[in-house]
Amino acid sequence: MRALKLVIAYDGTDFVGWQRQPEGVSVQRLVEDALAPLAQSAVSVVAAGRTDAGVHATGQVASVQLESRLDAQEIGRALNAQLPPAVRVLRADEAASGFHARFDARAKTYEYRLVNAPVASPFAVRYAWHVPVHLDLDRMIDAARRIEGTHDFACFQSTGGSAARSVRTVHGSELMAGGPGTVPAMVPEPVLRAGRLLVYRITGDGFLRHMVRSIVGTLVEIGRGAGAPERIDSLLASGTRAAAGPTAPACGLCLVGVSYDPPEMGGA
Amino acid sequence: MRALKLVIAYDGTDFVGWQRQPEGVSVQRLVEDALAPLAQSAVSVVAAGRTDAGVHATGQVASVQLESRLDAQEIGRALNAQLPPAVRVLRADEAASGFHARFDARAKTYEYRLVNAPVASPFAVRYAWHVPVHLDLDRMIDAARRIEGTHDFACFQSTGGSAARSVRTVHGSELMAGGPGTVPAMVPEPVLRAGRLLVYRITGDGFLRHMVRSIVGTLVEIGRGAGAPERIDSLLASGTRAAAGPTAPACGLCLVGVSYDPPEMGGA
Repeated sequence: MRALKLVIAYDGTDFVGWQRQPEGVSVQRLVEDALAPLAQSAVSVVAAGRTDAGVHATGQVASVQLESRLDAQEIGRALNAQLPPAVRVLRADEAASGFHARFDARAKTYEYRLVNAPVASPFAVRYAWHVPVHLDLDRMIDAARRIEGTHDFACFQSTGGSAARSVRTVHGSELMAGGPGTVPAMVPEPVLRAGRLLVYRITGDGFLRHMVRSIVGTLVEIGRGAGAPERIDSLLASGTRAAAGPTAPACGLCLVGVSYDPPEMGGA
Repeated sequence: MRALKLVIAYDGTDFVGWQRQPEGVSVQRLVEDALAPLAQSAVSVVAAGRTDAGVHATGQVASVQLESRLDAQEIGRALNAQLPPAVRVLRADEAASGFHARFDARAKTYEYRLVNAPVASPFAVRYAWHVPVHLDLDRMIDAARRIEGTHDFACFQSTGGSAARSVRTVHGSELMAGGPGTVPAMVPEPVLRAGRLLVYRITGDGFLRHMVRSIVGTLVEIGRGAGAPERIDSLLASGTRAAAGPTAPACGLCLVGVSYDPPEMGGA
């Protein structure tokens, strides 16, 4: 059996998430259905990150074992011909036999976008959380840095989470005010003049269920004045989910990359 | 009666256009329905540009005459509380009595976005036309400039157009390769490395039905090698719609601004 490594982007707005569900359209189902005619048999596609409903990806990685005489690039093109425009295969490469996108991943990077403005652009709301109130950016930047390191992240795990062990290592956790390069082209100037785009980027060796969104919800609470940046330290020490902020909406979250090399500490 | 000037942005993907239609949701209907409870009577909202189904706006201007004790900013906030997130009032200002957004407009500016890349990002396809084949940018830039000036634009009018007179003045017509500032933040890097975002910007005193999209369709034909840039000159002289290129898809088009001051020649 050959193994393929696929890099996939998707607008998650209209999907129930990566993973197949009894109801609704999942990205996994779309990719598996598009692959089936190319393979000699039904195929199972494994993703590095099982993104939730409404979560986006610009750099999801998936693996598949299959029999096919087509070369990897041809398979990528054939997949894009079958898939809806909301799901695109950006790369398709031959991988080492047995390559497993999730088990072999060394680090994943997520970004979370916030529009901090009185009025949110219609072109931002699909891909960002609109926070109309004033946020103290310096406090949020300080708080974000405190996430870095090896901690028990139980306090940021959703009640539905099933991870037996909640210790994870976060290599980078950074909040940035979006410069021109990170501002969506379609955000109208009047909105930008009255606000800003914030991007939170986190890289780690693994993530608990809703962990990034719970961190973002807590950072926003701290930005609004509910607690000092040091609140992160006590949250991590307490391990109590109820003490953390609310789970931020799915629309702002995006899986931007997966690394299969040993991660560098502090880098994203 | 007071007159208000509203600046409105919308993601046109899911609407039948600005204007009310027998079927489907129009932006006009949404804005009028949101205004009704604030005014003493049913109101009629006039837009500068009657954008077609699927066309976006970041700077549509609308006028309304109404009775209300609320100040303009309060009306803007109340409208946004009623409208779906895909439609946002960016500004609401008091206007001179009798202000008419369409008749008083001196110039309108549209932008048209193209993703010229082998694979189009899922985050670009709602707001740009995906052209996967090679385009000769220099020829398109040259051709775009030939649109400027006062011409009979009959060759770029759709067959359904009803304008009695097809002479218009185009103050600016420019094709630009998108720099970092114009690249949507969510376009994945692998896509950008393999392609580019092109933005066509046109400012004029008026536009015939499908005029901008027909110009873009013709520019893309010229970029693909179907005719030299001088083809624009002969098209304008001929006045024959059949000789021009196809109408580009609505999704790439966006009304970015309306001017009520005398336009400067050559400016956008």
